[in-house]
Amino acid sequence: MLEELKKRVYDQNISLVSHGLVVLTWGNVSARDAETGLIVIKPSGVAYNTMKAEDMVVVDANGEVVEGHWRPSSDLPTHLYLYKQYPSLGGIVHTHSAYATAFAQSGRGIPAYGTTHADAFYGDVPCSRPLTNEEIDEAYEWNTGKVIAESVTDVEAIPAMLVKNHGVFTWGATPEKAVENAVTVEEVAKMALFTERLNPGAPKIEQHLLDKHYFRKHGKNAYYGQK
Amino acid sequence: MLEELKKRVYDQNISLVSHGLVVLTWGNVSARDAETGLIVIKPSGVAYNTMKAEDMVVVDANGEVVEGHWRPSSDLPTHLYLYKQYPSLGGIVHTHSAYATAFAQSGRGIPAYGTTHADAFYGDVPCSRPLTNEEIDEAYEWNTGKVIAESVTDVEAIPAMLVKNHGVFTWGATPEKAVENAVTVEEVAKMALFTERLNPGAPKIEQHLLDKHYFRKHGKNAYYGQK
Amino acid sequence: MLEELKKRVYDQNISLVSHGLVVLTWGNVSARDAETGLIVIKPSGVAYNTMKAEDMVVVDANGEVVEGHWRPSSDLPTHLYLYKQYPSLGGIVHTHSAYATAFAQSGRGIPAYGTTHADAFYGDVPCSRPLTNEEIDEAYEWNTGKVIAESVTDVEAIPAMLVKNHGVFTWGATPEKAVENAVTVEEVAKMALFTERLNPGAPKIEQHLLDKHYFRKHGKNAYYGQK
Amino acid sequence: MLEELKKRVYDQNISLVSHGLVVLTWGNVSARDAETGLIVIKPSGVAYNTMKAEDMVVVDANGEVVEGHWRPSSDLPTHLYLYKQYPSLGGIVHTHSAYATAFAQSGRGIPAYGTTHADAFYGDVPCSRPLTNEEIDEAYEWNTGKVIAESVTDVEAIPAMLVKNHGVFTWGATPEKAVENAVTVEEVAKMALFTERLNPGAPKIEQHLLDKHYFRKHGKNAYYGQK
Repeated sequence: MLEELKKRVYDQNISLVSHGLVVLTWGNVSARDAETGLIVIKPSGVAYNTMKAEDMVVVDANGEVVEGHWRPSSDLPTHLYLYKQYPSLGGIVHTHSAYATAFAQSGRGIPAYGTTHADAFYGDVPCSRPLTNEEIDEAYEWNTGKVIAESVTDVEAIPAMLVKNHGVFTWGATPEKAVENAVTVEEVAKMALFTERLNPGAPKIEQHLLDKHYFRKHGKNAYYGQK
Repeated sequence: MLEELKKRVYDQNISLVSHGLVVLTWGNVSARDAETGLIVIKPSGVAYNTMKAEDMVVVDANGEVVEGHWRPSSDLPTHLYLYKQYPSLGGIVHTHSAYATAFAQSGRGIPAYGTTHADAFYGDVPCSRPLTNEEIDEAYEWNTGKVIAESVTDVEAIPAMLVKNHGVFTWGATPEKAVENAVTVEEVAKMALFTERLNPGAPKIEQHLLDKHYFRKHGKNAYYGQK
Repeated sequence: MLEELKKRVYDQNISLVSHGLVVLTWGNVSARDAETGLIVIKPSGVAYNTMKAEDMVVVDANGEVVEGHWRPSSDLPTHLYLYKQYPSLGGIVHTHSAYATAFAQSGRGIPAYGTTHADAFYGDVPCSRPLTNEEIDEAYEWNTGKVIAESVTDVEAIPAMLVKNHGVFTWGATPEKAVENAVTVEEVAKMALFTERLNPGAPKIEQHLLDKHYFRKHGKNAYYGQK
Repeated sequence: MLEELKKRVYDQNISLVSHGLVVLTWGNVSARDAETGLIVIKPSGVAYNTMKAEDMVVVDANGEVVEGHWRPSSDLPTHLYLYKQYPSLGGIVHTHSAYATAFAQSGRGIPAYGTTHADAFYGDVPCSRPLTNEEIDEAYEWNTGKVIAESVTDVEAIPAMLVKNHGVFTWGATPEKAVENAVTVEEVAKMALFTERLNPGAPKIEQHLLDKHYFRKHGKNAYYGQK
């Protein structure tokens, strides 16, 4: 079932490696089928070089396996929480990409320093609060989704979050778009780190320019890309 | 029409990716046909892995599409402004390459610290002033060309500019040369960042050595390369 | 003899290069055969691009060559010391990977700043004390094993060590697992360096979260990966 | 003539690119034929992707072209000076590799912080004094060889030099060994930069350990590699 979506989810998991966002098995992509609401996700801890499209696991909105011979990613409950909370999401990505994760380990969001950032994100990419010990002890991955959602201001305008001391979650209308956002987060995190080194007091991009670039690509007046 | 030039523009757009200057679709190369004055440019927001030579768009000096089934790059007006202003240009490149863009986000030009820089650029690569809100609101991309031109001292001696909080523009007599300059800008930006970290008070290259290296490769007394 | 294990050791030596952990011939992987106790190791100073599986050298627990037409890696005695000390080890890796070696050159262990680290290592990756002149003069490589063992607290919980001013040793139940740990050490070293630059006073990961991530993947209550 | 040596010089020029030491055409490798004293060097400014083994230029010790249809590298006189000064050299390499060049731009040698460095270089890799204006004006490339030679203490023990504000020269008994030294210089420069960032007051490697590693691989008591 959902063979085409499994292939897309597989392809996007592989693309995390070719984009340099994932080493070993440290990442996962999922997608939600718009018609059935079923979710397709990478299996847990399977090596990328032997993984195949048919290894993707299909689960329902409660995480029950509907099809698949592997355990789903252990991060599945985080994905489930976000899909439940945000009906517009069609794809979710989790990585430990190095520059963005360094921001998460620093307990800082990624400041919007330029138009590369503004083309994708309407403001800083926030960093979550830490989970409490209680949240860690019970339903850790579900609660990870909860603390992400707490810091989300506009799920469509800033489709990315850092989880403190952990890593990156991004999302979008499709798994392809979610991966694109994961690529962008890492690239703007890298540029932000370099920017702060070149000019420790560098101000953020001005609001007017942020607006221009963000709305050039998003919303009803967008004119970037093809019609 | 201009099939050969389309192929060259296509090849150079692809080479931005293989040189590591562009991720996703964040860059564009254009060329001007010397005979007709027509301009060939990458289409807007088309993925590099599916793009073909025949997807390049041909426009006239006013930006009117002469041939092509896609919208041209949204940065076209910046290219048009620069072609209009500088008749010697045959190719223009725009990237968000990470080190050079970090300088742009820092509001700083790239200092000429060594002969790698001097072999290509006769002095610092400047960073533009910010655009005013008015310049952003109307004809943003055209005005981006304008602020670039304001900071150009000698269009041939320093064929590269940073646009504040944005990214990199380079140019040359051909699209190939413009790409070569884009590669060089990123490499010297990287070296400059490393240099400042190793020696925060590092002086720039001495004028005498800058002259030697620049004129060893450029002008009537050049002796680098083949006759 | 041990042709299959030779092939695995060969493959893992090659994978050090593809993972970007080794340039030239600066690294080695060995494995211990559980049944015979014999050790298979890379030959010394043989270029990776001409090396073949049959070039791997088989030695006994005292380092006497049992089979092979090349000298074993000059680091063999370090491997022997660790195999002797820790019966559970099935594979050992040595690299000079750049970020982790920079920590070793700085005389610092790698602080556990996040869950990427905690997924593999139950606490900081320690840095050894320097060898004394006497330890350097006689049986240098054997004594390198000795100073590593001095700093090991739990050989399974933190399967990695930095040797001061030198490089990295990692290990595991298999050569594949030892290489995986070498990949992880380099990645968390890189992230740690970035983290300290973004926030010089960044605290380490909280113990509760470290526990959660480490025991999610290790021990009897692990639930990451497949059954 | 010297077809085999031309092939080796060609291969080593290409390997500069695959080792990530050279972008565009910024580097060159030469070799001296032991029997005839003739020198084989890369042509000037020819793109690496179209260059062939037969494009290598053969010159005599005075730089007169003996065979070849291209101009030799403009850095030829530097190579000639070093070959004349040091009869033991069989190969010379010049690069602008980024980390090492950043040290050169900082006016600093590369400190010996660890055994990676000590395995190849018996002490810091020095940085030359700047050339005087007179040395720049007449016979610039020849004088570059002269200032290198001024800072060489032992041409075999430290087969590498930084030229202030310029780049890297390395050498060896063969062009292959010279390239290996160029790879090592860049790697230890990178590690040195990281080391200083992790610990700004990091001391250099102790002399006793430097001796051990250097003489483990070099001289009559070496025991690294094959007999």
